[in-house]
Amino acid sequence: MNSARVLPDTLEAFAAEAMRRYGLREDDARLSAHILVMTDTWGVHTHGTRQLRSLLKNFSIGRLDATATSEIVREGPAWALVDGHHSVPFVTAHRAMQLAIAKAKTAGIGYVGVVHTSHFGAAGYYAVMAAEQHMIGIAMCNADPQMSVPGSRGKVLGTNPIAYAIPAGKNSPIFLDIATSAAAANKIIRARLLGQSIPAGWLVDAEGRPTTDPSGFPETGALMPMAAHKGYGFALLVETLAGVVTGAALTREQPSWVPNVLGNPPGPANQGQAFIAIDAAMMTTTDAFDERMTWLGNYIHAAPRAEGAERIYLPGEIEWEKREKALAEGMILPPDVVDSLQGLAQDAGIDMLPFEMDVAG
Amino acid sequence: MNSARVLPDTLEAFAAEAMRRYGLREDDARLSAHILVMTDTWGVHTHGTRQLRSLLKNFSIGRLDATATSEIVREGPAWALVDGHHSVPFVTAHRAMQLAIAKAKTAGIGYVGVVHTSHFGAAGYYAVMAAEQHMIGIAMCNADPQMSVPGSRGKVLGTNPIAYAIPAGKNSPIFLDIATSAAAANKIIRARLLGQSIPAGWLVDAEGRPTTDPSGFPETGALMPMAAHKGYGFALLVETLAGVVTGAALTREQPSWVPNVLGNPPGPANQGQAFIAIDAAMMTTTDAFDERMTWLGNYIHAAPRAEGAERIYLPGEIEWEKREKALAEGMILPPDVVDSLQGLAQDAGIDMLPFEMDVAG
Repeated sequence: MNSARVLPDTLEAFAAEAMRRYGLREDDARLSAHILVMTDTWGVHTHGTRQLRSLLKNFSIGRLDATATSEIVREGPAWALVDGHHSVPFVTAHRAMQLAIAKAKTAGIGYVGVVHTSHFGAAGYYAVMAAEQHMIGIAMCNADPQMSVPGSRGKVLGTNPIAYAIPAGKNSPIFLDIATSAAAANKIIRARLLGQSIPAGWLVDAEGRPTTDPSGFPETGALMPMAAHKGYGFALLVETLAGVVTGAALTREQPSWVPNVLGNPPGPANQGQAFIAIDAAMMTTTDAFDERMTWLGNYIHAAPRAEGAERIYLPGEIEWEKREKALAEGMILPPDVVDSLQGLAQDAGIDMLPFEMDVAG
Repeated sequence: MNSARVLPDTLEAFAAEAMRRYGLREDDARLSAHILVMTDTWGVHTHGTRQLRSLLKNFSIGRLDATATSEIVREGPAWALVDGHHSVPFVTAHRAMQLAIAKAKTAGIGYVGVVHTSHFGAAGYYAVMAAEQHMIGIAMCNADPQMSVPGSRGKVLGTNPIAYAIPAGKNSPIFLDIATSAAAANKIIRARLLGQSIPAGWLVDAEGRPTTDPSGFPETGALMPMAAHKGYGFALLVETLAGVVTGAALTREQPSWVPNVLGNPPGPANQGQAFIAIDAAMMTTTDAFDERMTWLGNYIHAAPRAEGAERIYLPGEIEWEKREKALAEGMILPPDVVDSLQGLAQDAGIDMLPFEMDVAG
């Protein structure tokens, strides 16, 4: 495996072409490619185009349906329930956040739940959609069990990620996209692929003992929640807002979006997702909100620094700077991403990207 | 200092009497006492009646006004902004969550912000109010700086607590009430009072180095965010939803509710708070929601246990069991709480509680 440099547009065209070969409609392929490559430009390669190969297999085995379309099945003034009908999950999630934004434009806040869907990539993308409309956006999903809870061994809850984004006045939108586990499962699987050890506090082994060796995961062991009972609590809140409220499959009843995971239950994906948009200006004014967010961002930037710290970053700031650089110069994809894309090209029967290979990572 | 056993009703009557002496109206004193003693029955003594002595001083020095009443200043179908007018903060927060619940009953979700208010005790109380109405409740507030952020030294953001509660079918409501710091400031101050050391990861010293010695805090040093960048991110989300959106004082502009804190800015309290209620049944049915929450709770209870773990608890379950016991047998208040209540009795010029003293803690 080697790292490779690629321009975002080139990668996006490649990803869209692969999706067309799996029967996705033109618009769906383009939007999905855009979402995955946006994520890569942020430097969040665990959740970018690296995931496409596994995700597309769901269409081959009938867990997802490239010809289906999502549907609004129930709604009120400030909420809606969307049935994904196992259609392209990026497209369903995008539509759900658009709907949450529309609800928030009239009601001040909008909460849209989704059932019968699957992995939507990085939750942060959808949160940022709201921030681009001067709204606070929150996106989350439940997931198949990967995480222990305090007092348990083995996998009990999903990593149940949650992301938010906030328009930040003169600074770039603040955004955070995190697993409620101490680390995302993908990060541990990536460390395993790279033969690296992981920090203490991320993983317990088959007997429930903390370990820094990722080689048994995901077959055995379980992630640890972030900050112990706090991460456990947040994971349960996400399970409720994304899964229980919406009617999606919960915990062990939910198939993984990675088709070949050991012991994966059969049947179509039925992940639950939740998208919340809040009109940031409703209680004051747009100008007041922007001025106050600018003040807050500048205040944090100017805080006295710890020894050795050159800058203090706002959440998401590193990602925006990486994106700017990626758009200008291209980005360097790590070897595991390149490997996954090569596998995808083979699976889809398309030409591999014209990569500039073996660049320094 | 000694620990003491007391019945919740006795403590509530004592707390209400103290508040009357500070000029609080009868209903306001009763409700505030109920909120603080509910918190004590949960075993969360850092946020119960122990706080009353400091909080009441705000009425003496003019930061709070016992004769004022909160007011709804702006509202929409699913949101409202409440101006506390520096009135009794427990009462304002209670009213704001009631309003969020009322909004959620018609719109599905309600988000109520509060300005010109002060410390409301434990955020969890207000979240639980929603759960008692079969709603998911979320409560949060911004606060004066106590916490470093990644790359900073010194205090930059408040501990910005967030709490939620969920009706859980046949189990007691699930609830979590946490600081976005690794630990609540009160826990560190309590450890200092008790002469105890604190776990690593809670505090940095004046130079920004991690320490287990709480003796310098809060005069110097700063709390550490939970799970590093994740706690930082959640603290900023709370600062935005409770502070920026509402127009409350932000970070260093916000006076502490503890009047004698070093360097406390002058002027009335202007904490921001946010209360969110979500109709748990809107997307499915009440029965479906309850059945699914019961299933989820039972599933977690029945998970394989780690070595040495006798039970797996749902968030809030320990607190509900403590409350049940406290209502039946009374509760044992730790020495620092007894000491604070004795000081309160002196300040207010009322008789100290008829405690059963020196019981084993």
